Amino acid sequence: MDLSELGEFGLISRFQSRLKYRSPQVIQGIGDDCAVLSLNNGNYQVVTTDALVETVHFNLKTHSPEQLGWKTMAVNISDIAAMGGQPKFAVISLGIPNSVPVDFLDRFYKGLNQASHKYKVALVGGDTVASPKHLFINLALLGETVKKKVFTRSGARPGDKIFVTGTLGDSALGLKILESPKKKRKGSEALQKKLIQRHLKPEPRVEAATWLARSKCKVTSMIDISDGLTQDLGHILKAGKVGAELWESNIPISKPLAKYCLINGLPALQLALEGGEDYELLFTLTPEDVTNLDIESITKADHPVTQIGVITAKKNFRLISKNGRSKILQRPMGFNHFKRKA
Amino acid sequence: MDLSELGEFGLISRFQSRLKYRSPQVIQGIGDDCAVLSLNNGNYQVVTTDALVETVHFNLKTHSPEQLGWKTMAVNISDIAAMGGQPKFAVISLGIPNSVPVDFLDRFYKGLNQASHKYKVALVGGDTVASPKHLFINLALLGETVKKKVFTRSGARPGDKIFVTGTLGDSALGLKILESPKKKRKGSEALQKKLIQRHLKPEPRVEAATWLARSKCKVTSMIDISDGLTQDLGHILKAGKVGAELWESNIPISKPLAKYCLINGLPALQLALEGGEDYELLFTLTPEDVTNLDIESITKADHPVTQIGVITAKKNFRLISKNGRSKILQRPMGFNHFKRKA
Repeated sequence: MDLSELGEFGLISRFQSRLKYRSPQVIQGIGDDCAVLSLNNGNYQVVTTDALVETVHFNLKTHSPEQLGWKTMAVNISDIAAMGGQPKFAVISLGIPNSVPVDFLDRFYKGLNQASHKYKVALVGGDTVASPKHLFINLALLGETVKKKVFTRSGARPGDKIFVTGTLGDSALGLKILESPKKKRKGSEALQKKLIQRHLKPEPRVEAATWLARSKCKVTSMIDISDGLTQDLGHILKAGKVGAELWESNIPISKPLAKYCLINGLPALQLALEGGEDYELLFTLTPEDVTNLDIESITKADHPVTQIGVITAKKNFRLISKNGRSKILQRPMGFNHFKRKA
Repeated sequence: MDLSELGEFGLISRFQSRLKYRSPQVIQGIGDDCAVLSLNNGNYQVVTTDALVETVHFNLKTHSPEQLGWKTMAVNISDIAAMGGQPKFAVISLGIPNSVPVDFLDRFYKGLNQASHKYKVALVGGDTVASPKHLFINLALLGETVKKKVFTRSGARPGDKIFVTGTLGDSALGLKILESPKKKRKGSEALQKKLIQRHLKPEPRVEAATWLARSKCKVTSMIDISDGLTQDLGHILKAGKVGAELWESNIPISKPLAKYCLINGLPALQLALEGGEDYELLFTLTPEDVTNLDIESITKADHPVTQIGVITAKKNFRLISKNGRSKILQRPMGFNHFKRKA
């Protein structure tokens, strides 16, 4: 069998089924944003790891070292937030080609330090090694839940309402702008910069996540949007064996995105549905909770929260357009690392 | 400044001094085999991470996928053992070039699983991504101490006795054999295999470490020998601001190593002093403890333990030869990743 056929998720489930040693302290193993461990200290520990590889996840032409440092920390923090946790401790590994100057590393650590300071993450260790050609970065992050409250991908039930924090598609558009020739971009520099910033300096929604964990709401499922709304909602639907109806008119689109797309003739809705790396939270609540939910409070705590649809018993995945028409969405396979040409 | 001037350890201390966020829960941060965290559950948590890069740390011609999987787990477990801890949970990141077949990964995970089963480590998650050219592997491992007992590099005092588990140099010789043409090797296949096995399938000394942690001995410092006896003892001396006297006649050399070196005209003592990747434990005990130490018990629990010298107030590092002559050892700079040609 070929790696590109099997894909990342195929590979993961293949090994998950073959694990030889299982510990009763593992509440959630492979297959969610984080692993969940019971260490008998009143809370759960949540653990995640993310690798970033030059040319695959980032390009040294579009990311400054500071931005890369920030992003390395931010994407992992987002995984901890997606479980309702608070990030606490990190260890980082760097594989460094000889061509990388010390100044680059100084600036990389500066960005990493900024994120670590903002989100109160202690960098406690790591490994620094040579790499023959490409820079690679791996961060492993440990977090803590509020008591034993943890939000996983599974658990969404028919009738549950679907929410997202913030606005969607900005990061994907920011990347598109970065990759397009400057001369061909229409719209002010300031407008472009706002969108590019969303791509280069994502802000994980830790406050919204811990607000939800401390509230009385029953969050039935949660994930962070790293691969795009449809793909990440797809994970929730698959895990819960349910379907969903999304409302086009409610998909939160930022003013900069709407404006830039209008001027440049780009598909705003598609970017919001499929664009990755927003690192917003996608979660479901039981209908009763929503009545009690003080949306204003989360909004104050962090960023706007919008209901974008509802979970259905019917297992398909539909988009209700602004004029009321219903369209079945293909559950996208999403980004398959192993189909890329290296 | 150039990366090769600064070196791995220079780079680490450079960033350590610039950390912006510090947590009171961090008992030991950057600079030892593991970080030590206080999670208020009666024990400490110990955390380590190790990156292995193709062509830098392993060669797919000399390591089978199973051996690579085993080694990935074993080298991290050794870091946990070096703190007196027991390994518990692991997350693994793989950067996989398109050229790697699924069968390779199956076999890699088989080796990883074997080590995980033997040392009771639950593999709880990871990240699987593409890599443009070289395979890289990163494992982060969480462990637990016996109560709040943790062994760090610092703390060795003049008069403390220096011990190692097992025998030294076998792994380095195993690698030398692997890299030499078959026709030029003298000595039986079985002899060669024993030494090669020590390189390909290291066995971290978890039993000896936990035996010491549970004993009444005061372990004043501990490290695992990954970069060679002199370099790793160097870390203990530097951290404790002390010196050492090593006794040549006590350096534990295995029969296979002595035999192969004799037949092939290789320097056995130098291999034992400088060869890396033995993953034996190097530790110091106060003289009073040694009288009480039941060496037999550790030996039964895991592997032989030998006193190889003594910590001195004088800060140099001397080797006392078999005929009683004293020779100052240069504290080697050891393996500098960034001096390698990529």
